[in-house]
Amino acid sequence: MCGVVGIYCEDEDLTPSLTYYSLYSLQHRGQESAGIAVYSNGIKVYKEMGLVTEVFKGDVLSKLKGKIAIGHVRYSTTGESRIENAQPILVRSKIGEIAIGHNGNLVNYSQLRGILENEGKVFLTTSDTEVIAQLLSNFLMKYDLHDSLKLLSERILGSYTLTMLINDKLLGYRDPLGFRPLCIGEGDFGFVIASESCALDTLEVYKMRDVKPGEAIIIEDGNVEFVRVKKSKRCARCVFEYIYFARPDSVIDGVNVYKARYNMGRRLARESMVDCDIVSPVPDSGTTCAIGYSAESGIPYIEALIKNRYVGRTFIMPEQRIREHSVRIKMNVIEENVKGKKVTLVDDSIVRGTTSRKIVEMVRRAGAKEVHFRVGSPPIISPCYFGIDMSTREELIASCGDIEYVRRAISADTLAYLSLNGLIKSVNFNEKDLCLACLTGIYPIELCDNSKYEQNY
Amino acid sequence: MCGVVGIYCEDEDLTPSLTYYSLYSLQHRGQESAGIAVYSNGIKVYKEMGLVTEVFKGDVLSKLKGKIAIGHVRYSTTGESRIENAQPILVRSKIGEIAIGHNGNLVNYSQLRGILENEGKVFLTTSDTEVIAQLLSNFLMKYDLHDSLKLLSERILGSYTLTMLINDKLLGYRDPLGFRPLCIGEGDFGFVIASESCALDTLEVYKMRDVKPGEAIIIEDGNVEFVRVKKSKRCARCVFEYIYFARPDSVIDGVNVYKARYNMGRRLARESMVDCDIVSPVPDSGTTCAIGYSAESGIPYIEALIKNRYVGRTFIMPEQRIREHSVRIKMNVIEENVKGKKVTLVDDSIVRGTTSRKIVEMVRRAGAKEVHFRVGSPPIISPCYFGIDMSTREELIASCGDIEYVRRAISADTLAYLSLNGLIKSVNFNEKDLCLACLTGIYPIELCDNSKYEQNY
Amino acid sequence: MCGVVGIYCEDEDLTPSLTYYSLYSLQHRGQESAGIAVYSNGIKVYKEMGLVTEVFKGDVLSKLKGKIAIGHVRYSTTGESRIENAQPILVRSKIGEIAIGHNGNLVNYSQLRGILENEGKVFLTTSDTEVIAQLLSNFLMKYDLHDSLKLLSERILGSYTLTMLINDKLLGYRDPLGFRPLCIGEGDFGFVIASESCALDTLEVYKMRDVKPGEAIIIEDGNVEFVRVKKSKRCARCVFEYIYFARPDSVIDGVNVYKARYNMGRRLARESMVDCDIVSPVPDSGTTCAIGYSAESGIPYIEALIKNRYVGRTFIMPEQRIREHSVRIKMNVIEENVKGKKVTLVDDSIVRGTTSRKIVEMVRRAGAKEVHFRVGSPPIISPCYFGIDMSTREELIASCGDIEYVRRAISADTLAYLSLNGLIKSVNFNEKDLCLACLTGIYPIELCDNSKYEQNY
Amino acid sequence: MCGVVGIYCEDEDLTPSLTYYSLYSLQHRGQESAGIAVYSNGIKVYKEMGLVTEVFKGDVLSKLKGKIAIGHVRYSTTGESRIENAQPILVRSKIGEIAIGHNGNLVNYSQLRGILENEGKVFLTTSDTEVIAQLLSNFLMKYDLHDSLKLLSERILGSYTLTMLINDKLLGYRDPLGFRPLCIGEGDFGFVIASESCALDTLEVYKMRDVKPGEAIIIEDGNVEFVRVKKSKRCARCVFEYIYFARPDSVIDGVNVYKARYNMGRRLARESMVDCDIVSPVPDSGTTCAIGYSAESGIPYIEALIKNRYVGRTFIMPEQRIREHSVRIKMNVIEENVKGKKVTLVDDSIVRGTTSRKIVEMVRRAGAKEVHFRVGSPPIISPCYFGIDMSTREELIASCGDIEYVRRAISADTLAYLSLNGLIKSVNFNEKDLCLACLTGIYPIELCDNSKYEQNY
Repeated sequence: MCGVVGIYCEDEDLTPSLTYYSLYSLQHRGQESAGIAVYSNGIKVYKEMGLVTEVFKGDVLSKLKGKIAIGHVRYSTTGESRIENAQPILVRSKIGEIAIGHNGNLVNYSQLRGILENEGKVFLTTSDTEVIAQLLSNFLMKYDLHDSLKLLSERILGSYTLTMLINDKLLGYRDPLGFRPLCIGEGDFGFVIASESCALDTLEVYKMRDVKPGEAIIIEDGNVEFVRVKKSKRCARCVFEYIYFARPDSVIDGVNVYKARYNMGRRLARESMVDCDIVSPVPDSGTTCAIGYSAESGIPYIEALIKNRYVGRTFIMPEQRIREHSVRIKMNVIEENVKGKKVTLVDDSIVRGTTSRKIVEMVRRAGAKEVHFRVGSPPIISPCYFGIDMSTREELIASCGDIEYVRRAISADTLAYLSLNGLIKSVNFNEKDLCLACLTGIYPIELCDNSKYEQNY
Repeated sequence: MCGVVGIYCEDEDLTPSLTYYSLYSLQHRGQESAGIAVYSNGIKVYKEMGLVTEVFKGDVLSKLKGKIAIGHVRYSTTGESRIENAQPILVRSKIGEIAIGHNGNLVNYSQLRGILENEGKVFLTTSDTEVIAQLLSNFLMKYDLHDSLKLLSERILGSYTLTMLINDKLLGYRDPLGFRPLCIGEGDFGFVIASESCALDTLEVYKMRDVKPGEAIIIEDGNVEFVRVKKSKRCARCVFEYIYFARPDSVIDGVNVYKARYNMGRRLARESMVDCDIVSPVPDSGTTCAIGYSAESGIPYIEALIKNRYVGRTFIMPEQRIREHSVRIKMNVIEENVKGKKVTLVDDSIVRGTTSRKIVEMVRRAGAKEVHFRVGSPPIISPCYFGIDMSTREELIASCGDIEYVRRAISADTLAYLSLNGLIKSVNFNEKDLCLACLTGIYPIELCDNSKYEQNY
Repeated sequence: MCGVVGIYCEDEDLTPSLTYYSLYSLQHRGQESAGIAVYSNGIKVYKEMGLVTEVFKGDVLSKLKGKIAIGHVRYSTTGESRIENAQPILVRSKIGEIAIGHNGNLVNYSQLRGILENEGKVFLTTSDTEVIAQLLSNFLMKYDLHDSLKLLSERILGSYTLTMLINDKLLGYRDPLGFRPLCIGEGDFGFVIASESCALDTLEVYKMRDVKPGEAIIIEDGNVEFVRVKKSKRCARCVFEYIYFARPDSVIDGVNVYKARYNMGRRLARESMVDCDIVSPVPDSGTTCAIGYSAESGIPYIEALIKNRYVGRTFIMPEQRIREHSVRIKMNVIEENVKGKKVTLVDDSIVRGTTSRKIVEMVRRAGAKEVHFRVGSPPIISPCYFGIDMSTREELIASCGDIEYVRRAISADTLAYLSLNGLIKSVNFNEKDLCLACLTGIYPIELCDNSKYEQNY
Repeated sequence: MCGVVGIYCEDEDLTPSLTYYSLYSLQHRGQESAGIAVYSNGIKVYKEMGLVTEVFKGDVLSKLKGKIAIGHVRYSTTGESRIENAQPILVRSKIGEIAIGHNGNLVNYSQLRGILENEGKVFLTTSDTEVIAQLLSNFLMKYDLHDSLKLLSERILGSYTLTMLINDKLLGYRDPLGFRPLCIGEGDFGFVIASESCALDTLEVYKMRDVKPGEAIIIEDGNVEFVRVKKSKRCARCVFEYIYFARPDSVIDGVNVYKARYNMGRRLARESMVDCDIVSPVPDSGTTCAIGYSAESGIPYIEALIKNRYVGRTFIMPEQRIREHSVRIKMNVIEENVKGKKVTLVDDSIVRGTTSRKIVEMVRRAGAKEVHFRVGSPPIISPCYFGIDMSTREELIASCGDIEYVRRAISADTLAYLSLNGLIKSVNFNEKDLCLACLTGIYPIELCDNSKYEQNY
């Protein structure tokens, strides 16, 4: 997963700070690397491994000036996280310079790369973003920007939300199926394009609207142009953005993420409430859902678990003997709140199930009479090829057995998932406008060769 | 504020990791520096500026071996945060080596230092911990450990929870008024002394009990001795540990912090409920209190505000023009949850009031019809001289005017604080066993010269 | 300037260390960045800004394993020194992976890049090494390795000494005019290709021979193949390698650098000796030349100047007021050795003349009766376009006036340079086999557009 | 070993830079840590592990302002090099603040510390400098500065050259036997006190004179006072400062170090010249001595060995298999200069002999017909207890056997040392004014308990 932003600001000294703050508000979308590209008589990129606050320290920001900028935060799904793959990437060609920040994943990456290699193209990274850059550069040599975007959209398949600098132009582009979110806002200083509306709020900017699937935003000399590059009969908004990934204060395609999660909790209670003394979230992912569940069920909302709020990227586990207790180091149970009680734990989803099991056991050891587990989404049974790291099918516990199998695996007294219909109602879209692949196994784009896509994560 | 731990572990390779994890669970008590001292044929100290995970990286831990260890995390209240003041401090004298980690503040520091200087003593730091170390060393030259601790307690005034290595002995000591918490637990590997019980939970250790005010724990060769050094007719448990400072999963002197806060919320609702559509915490400090308030009042608990969970120590504000919007960068409002609604915001306390005002305004701008502010503790009117940084009296907004004055300052529709009596009932101690100085101005120890104490923060 | 190495070692655990040590011995050829690429089932690159010992610290080396490796140290001539330009660079294409380390400079870089851009090629760096990589990749798609190297040599103009990994093959290649040195050695463990023979000595490896101009070394599965890719009627060995750049213990194309410099000193004495009490080098560059001058002239060799041996890359000059005294901070005069004496100072060359002037003045202020300056090479009048940073023509003091002009500028009593003929005799090559462009203005390759080459430094 | 400086400068912004540059010029006296203390309304210290340029980077210097400052560079002789032992150290007591930088070693440290401990004193470091600070503080409580220095000199035994800030006074003090050098200079901006005159040259300051043994310099409000604290019938100038330690451009007690070394070489040639083709230094330590040897003997001075000039503190030896070749990595032989020749190698001294042996073998393997070794000082047979790290007696090869024993150990054809008389003549002092302990075993101060001193290194 990744987060992207684009800034147009009349005051070129202010641009880098605005980009920095908006990236900071999207930090949850990627913690591995961060980067900013600015244009001012040529494009300059600064990117490093680390959190936004770690990358842009000292006087780094003050060396980046320009009226337009893009920014990127990246989360790596592979063990090999390297600076070479940090973004934005910058390429130079006959048509000048292009800097690209990309959120998503191309499913025909291997094919495209094969074709380009056969044409004699050479690559310096293993990222699909370089493929996009090469294709776009080539189109721009022969066609204007509108046609080039159209041609690009016909060639690349998958999810791609892009912010770009093409020489002195700032672009935002959302793929025709609209997998990943993108929105645009306007403020006193200029314009902001960002993955989520929380970035606009952070800059105290007025949200104009969500960028439509297949739509490009082109900003040049302070003028904004909206171009519908490609129309699609359906959409494929990632439902996982609502379930887990996006910040709860964001509004995506008109739907507030908090409200969607709250609704999931309410519907979950309606579908599968069990009588208990308290309902508690698995922090932090289950919080909103548990609040909704409590509201609907009338069972008091009390936190059974407290998370160490300093848990982060840099945590080391020096002693093998201690590693197995790691859940306890990250999260603790409040005995007072569970002892002798019937407890319902609510989480947004279950992926591998190992953490869920440890939490259930911890609550039970603290004296809970019963521990019931409720999940704000249906079972995850298929891997995602569109940009969310969900491990391979083998690791998805729900793909290995039925609900009873999972219940035993996590040792809960009862287990219930939200129904697919309940989820769809909660987010309030037509089913055909959502990507539900991880829950149904039905992919909105036909896949040719799975093994290849996985390499490309 | 600070956090302290002491570890006795039969396996000397395991000790450093145990100390590390327990410090990590006390990170909320101090983020400026961290340190560990171990004894193995002499005492070795490693300490640095930074979070626990930043200080103990690479192979640092593997170089610290020994059966006994103490650890310390420190929060500096002054601008000048320097490595010289990091703890544990290590002193050498005729009686050997003493390493000390200190949580608290001596109110007769200046007098004691003056006396010691008149005796020809020389100091390498400006910390009151060095005064303790010098006094204790001196007593130990003439007296045994029990008598030395007694003499020390007669000389030093203020709050002091100490963990110490005195050559090959491990000690924990809580001052006779018991300002700051301390507890002891026993596990398979040995013993753990820690500021809060959450550290014991993290190590999956059985909590034996709280260390009593005026009680010392002496561990030598695996034997534990409990010594009642000094008895006091009253206690002075810091009520702010329950209100704000301690982790909610800790149990201090038999009272679970979460429950105390939850009770504050319930009593607050009983005392000053106003009819509203939602009740929301100011995150993260007001969360538990708001949950209690919602439970008692029946008003739905819905989060109006979302905090950026990557906010931390290293955040920079490069642009003056942006600095004033800093609240928005740290916290955002969910418009959906407040628009057209009557909102009650609950926080644990109000210190300077500036953040409260910004939050109230942010919620109002998002469309709330009414914004009511409820505080889980009485007004803070006096500074703390016992170890909690609460700024000077001039900055305490409640010391400048009555409740109506504060209400106008934070621009809330209504404002109510929990009554002192309500607070005392919530934590469930006798009033005489609590330090309520910040709320009442009545200090449990007579102060001689305020200006001097403040220098010593 | 840069230094390159290539290692073939049967023991894949040993290869990274061998590469590290050989780079370390070539540190004088580049202090800005260092990098190593290894092949073991794919190519892996590690490179960073800094000295070899700074870049490869901690456990970096232990993560690089493989039987073949190349290494590179780089010296940047421009203010903008960036990680993007560090080498080796790694490209991927249809034919697999190519890693290249390059010492030299292409003079038709702009033209080549223009042609490639017109063919639709896209670039991620501004380095001429990427042009080489793209061209070579393209040739390898259609031709075998021998023919590809031949075609490459017909396309690229300038100086280029390359070490490369082409998938599992290790290559060394020296351009047809042989501007920069390259040699090969054989040891118990395998083979070493390096810019200078001092790298072979460091690894205690037997020097097989210098790689001939236009010759490629291809090592595959432990077999070495010598291929004469392109023959040239003349050579263009850079004479500045002998004058200043190479390490004195290296032997390049059969000529020991120390001996060449010693000869320069002897011939200089024969040509322009002036009667003096002592002859002293300008440290460290003039040392060997001054020893030769002393031997020939019979004037005692005594050091007038001592250099602070900790002068290095990281030196800062915090105070403007002190900056002008910087020569004194780097170098001091020994008054005892010069007071009341006639002093001859010997340096290898004069570029801008500013340091020379400060040194002459310093020696004079210390009481020298006379200060004579002798230079071990002819005046530098033209910039180098083949890889040595010598600043632009405007900054070359000898291009601004005759010897008398320079003498006055550096305020010496007398000044003499070695004659061109004397230099050629000292290095003992035919004039037609040397590049003397910086001394004569006659370039061995015709230049089209100077301004463009300069951009490419 | 260590280096100390003290600066008085009317312009308080300039003081830190002057201190920095003078420390930089004394870097050869200690590479482990560096520190600066300034006084401006209180004393502030900044010190870190590392070279001067590494410690004072970024904006560190700009935060240190004041008219007076002291600085210190430290070389640790033990494996345990820790920040706690970095200097200057700062102590606070009734009389105010004292910062001390110390070059030397107390031989009655253990006794003094024992006495102070018996008086109830407590120590935070294991350094003898803290003992000096405690004693001086105590004296200053009862006596004026002059008497206190006198009393201090009666109590402490050993070598001690000190620069100090005592509140707003700047002091320099050289012990009564004058083991370590100290000099004072005057410039436009004020005064400089420094270990060696090269620091004065660096700041372009006029050297007033050497500080006499037993003399203190007190600078207050720009006024300088010279106080003869204690007179001694003899001196004990460390002869090793002239042999090896000091910079050759320094003048110590009227004797230029370069000239002393040059004389050693001349006398060595007169005493034990052997007919050879070339004479070469062991770089860098033997250079000046070899130049003198060549001048006297008439044998041409030609360098047989070249040292990698990037050898430094941070060098790592990742591979055990390579470690034994380490001499070759640091130093290479020039075959051209030794092949078929009779070679005399000159070094300033031999400590353990291991490097000497490797060098002799390397030269022989390069084809030298004969290899003769000449040493510019007599055999080192006894350890130093006055501040020079020379390892213990067991490691001193000359303490294990006669010259023939050493010759065989280093495998030279012949070996000769300079005679003691020759050395004394070369430095041109009366024998009774030198410390020759390492060469004679006769210590200028009676030693009580060697084992204890060694602990204190």
